[in-house]
Amino acid sequence: MDVVDRDELPSAARDLSTIVINTSLKPDPSMSHTGRLMDTSENIMRKAGTKITHIHLADHDVPPGIFSDMTQNGFDTDEWPSIWSAISDADIIVVGTPIWLRQESSLCRKLVERLYGMSGKLNDEGQSIFYGKVGGAMITGNEDGLKHCEANILYALQHLGCTIPPQADCGWIGKVGPGPSFGDRQDSERPAGFDSDFTQRNTTIMTWNLIHAARLLKDAGGLPSYGNDRNAWKDCDRFGFELPHPVAD
Amino acid sequence: MDVVDRDELPSAARDLSTIVINTSLKPDPSMSHTGRLMDTSENIMRKAGTKITHIHLADHDVPPGIFSDMTQNGFDTDEWPSIWSAISDADIIVVGTPIWLRQESSLCRKLVERLYGMSGKLNDEGQSIFYGKVGGAMITGNEDGLKHCEANILYALQHLGCTIPPQADCGWIGKVGPGPSFGDRQDSERPAGFDSDFTQRNTTIMTWNLIHAARLLKDAGGLPSYGNDRNAWKDCDRFGFELPHPVAD
Amino acid sequence: MDVVDRDELPSAARDLSTIVINTSLKPDPSMSHTGRLMDTSENIMRKAGTKITHIHLADHDVPPGIFSDMTQNGFDTDEWPSIWSAISDADIIVVGTPIWLRQESSLCRKLVERLYGMSGKLNDEGQSIFYGKVGGAMITGNEDGLKHCEANILYALQHLGCTIPPQADCGWIGKVGPGPSFGDRQDSERPAGFDSDFTQRNTTIMTWNLIHAARLLKDAGGLPSYGNDRNAWKDCDRFGFELPHPVAD
Amino acid sequence: MDVVDRDELPSAARDLSTIVINTSLKPDPSMSHTGRLMDTSENIMRKAGTKITHIHLADHDVPPGIFSDMTQNGFDTDEWPSIWSAISDADIIVVGTPIWLRQESSLCRKLVERLYGMSGKLNDEGQSIFYGKVGGAMITGNEDGLKHCEANILYALQHLGCTIPPQADCGWIGKVGPGPSFGDRQDSERPAGFDSDFTQRNTTIMTWNLIHAARLLKDAGGLPSYGNDRNAWKDCDRFGFELPHPVAD
Repeated sequence: MDVVDRDELPSAARDLSTIVINTSLKPDPSMSHTGRLMDTSENIMRKAGTKITHIHLADHDVPPGIFSDMTQNGFDTDEWPSIWSAISDADIIVVGTPIWLRQESSLCRKLVERLYGMSGKLNDEGQSIFYGKVGGAMITGNEDGLKHCEANILYALQHLGCTIPPQADCGWIGKVGPGPSFGDRQDSERPAGFDSDFTQRNTTIMTWNLIHAARLLKDAGGLPSYGNDRNAWKDCDRFGFELPHPVAD
Repeated sequence: MDVVDRDELPSAARDLSTIVINTSLKPDPSMSHTGRLMDTSENIMRKAGTKITHIHLADHDVPPGIFSDMTQNGFDTDEWPSIWSAISDADIIVVGTPIWLRQESSLCRKLVERLYGMSGKLNDEGQSIFYGKVGGAMITGNEDGLKHCEANILYALQHLGCTIPPQADCGWIGKVGPGPSFGDRQDSERPAGFDSDFTQRNTTIMTWNLIHAARLLKDAGGLPSYGNDRNAWKDCDRFGFELPHPVAD
Repeated sequence: MDVVDRDELPSAARDLSTIVINTSLKPDPSMSHTGRLMDTSENIMRKAGTKITHIHLADHDVPPGIFSDMTQNGFDTDEWPSIWSAISDADIIVVGTPIWLRQESSLCRKLVERLYGMSGKLNDEGQSIFYGKVGGAMITGNEDGLKHCEANILYALQHLGCTIPPQADCGWIGKVGPGPSFGDRQDSERPAGFDSDFTQRNTTIMTWNLIHAARLLKDAGGLPSYGNDRNAWKDCDRFGFELPHPVAD
Repeated sequence: MDVVDRDELPSAARDLSTIVINTSLKPDPSMSHTGRLMDTSENIMRKAGTKITHIHLADHDVPPGIFSDMTQNGFDTDEWPSIWSAISDADIIVVGTPIWLRQESSLCRKLVERLYGMSGKLNDEGQSIFYGKVGGAMITGNEDGLKHCEANILYALQHLGCTIPPQADCGWIGKVGPGPSFGDRQDSERPAGFDSDFTQRNTTIMTWNLIHAARLLKDAGGLPSYGNDRNAWKDCDRFGFELPHPVAD
């Protein structure tokens, strides 16, 4: 069977902006296995016209913490404010991580901490500053843990205020037990993981669903604020909420 | 401060349909603490014009399993097909569960199994049959585990094909250690949990975000199928996907 | 290389008693993939002299719930009391489950609920009734989720009062994406998973560590009760506990 | 009721050695809420005669990564080797973490990564270098996530080779929603969390169970190596393992 070559991809992605954050432990981006999978999603988005900002978190001097600028909390330097500025501008957030002992990397946790540190910020509608953005997760490992890490990342993103489109996660793991990582060259075979139709399909689905959902939200001017306007809630607008009956004795 | 009484709620919810599924272990719905919290979300939706179908799963004879009809797999009865029919018609799926030893109830797991059993079904666009629906999670417990259960349920729903709006989860737990459950009457005090502004606010936010996201998707005729059409993928349309470079040696 | 055949296994397991509980969704035990992996652990234990009781939970009429006998809570039948009697007699508890959508089966959750329903029972030392027992977890799936399910089961067992020996978990999953399950016959190949040295090794390690830890605890007459005697705690013995200083302002 | 004052604590803990690692994000240990809870466990152990080494991880220059010495992997400094030396000498490992957005801190994840980087090391018996040690987890937060974080930490420790005694975890969280953290001073009340009998009891139980289990293992000279000796496995000793039958067609 031949792969279908379309002359052009649909225009849904044209004026969208995506931030892709790789939380690999590898200081050198070219050595990151997760980075190779992330390339494929970025590549689709770029071809479709989306503007991409790629952050290799290990390259940046970002302290752990839950404040917006850790130089005001005892650290000498903090590159987070400029990273946040890029995140703030994006319509789509893609977080990638390797799996180590079943979990996301410590850099991925640090990223979530720093994002969490921004969660008090509201937009002009009184919504969390993340409203209007969509989020996805990309994972690779040579061991089990894909869905666990995906659930952790997607939960955090929706908790902060992102919308999560259907099947907004993808990844690759090798067979059970030690083995090669995604993209490792192998003797007389394709690089590890390159033959996985499952990984290719899910990466493609994730990428387009992020685009489609971001498009919908952008064209709608974000999610309406009725019911989620925290300033109005503080001013005692209850948006229809009433207390229930107690439980029967 | 007075609660703001609006004469009417916005019309976003008017022709939407919601299925609310309580997976409490209590056979009697009136005894379910989770059910009391779910009432509040249903009540908002009903006032806003959404059609509600409420399923108390413990009331129904639904075997565990991962097939669409377990009477063809060794069980005498299976009420799942009629429950599925109601789910299938809904724009919004709300799943509620109590927490027992940190986790969702076994009935909640059974619900996810049965939903998973439908995941091979595609709509006319070649998308998972859950595309176009939105999902949320409501949890109560007298012990810790809220976010863990929320993450589990929301992950499953997005994996199946639902869109997850921002902050699509809410709940209540008591203070650390044994204690009353949500809605339990207490001497000379309001019923347990009824004074939690946090729970009230998050329930309201969840409810309206489900409505807003369902409205967006319904008006758009669902999520576009470019990139997530599984039939087209089988026919080798790759939607822009290309393999990456191998990892650097 | 030849496999080493020892004439006899060590005698550590001689008077130990193990309960093995398979929470497969398959009503027919011979169809359970998880059951095939569990056979290997049981086989080692049996050869080593341990008495085995095997429960295929799907074969038993056990309602969900958190009480010790659900016939007193609205159900007509409940086989749990006799299952509990077998668990109660065992030195080692092994729980097996398949993975469905990343999680343990609903039957596994039901098992944990019913075990949790016994957690108020104390032994003569005022300890949880599970003290003195050791626990392990065995998982199979044709999809990712091994360590997540293992962590869930082992956490529950230690919370109830079991000791968890090192590496008390094992399992097998297929390569990423759909595929055969453990023990499925394959054309011109060994059954799925039978070539995994990783699975074989970890199953063996788990099995012997359960035996070794149960031996230690049994020979010691269980864990000493100083500090964990809940009756003494109620009587205000604090076993050395003192409140700390507040956090610095 | 009066608290029972015993003249002396039992001698089980006398020659044991404990490493306590606080992965709080606070650079200043005196500001750590988790640290205050950890004090109580340390205090019991110290009174019982256990030698304590306390590490406040945020005080140390430890890069993320999965190697035993990151100065050989691109980092200028790495204090891990000396921390590892202390861990290596200990009979008991206690890991403490705050909860941020439902999860352990990024420093806790970094600790697990660095421990994981040692997992290839075997002792003279061919067992993981962690065999013979016992592990526990202490968590505080002003939000839900206690058991989730406990399960994550305990799973990692047992995976590495620690034994997990019964109920080897404890913690405190405030009531649902924002609020004070453990040990925060409060107007006209005791510091936050200081009135929780549940937290006090579970901290005491965890502490003594760690002592009891470490005592048992130390007196036994560790866990026997039959079945878990990885060198023997490589040399094809199978310790009784045999492949099962395939699944029935």
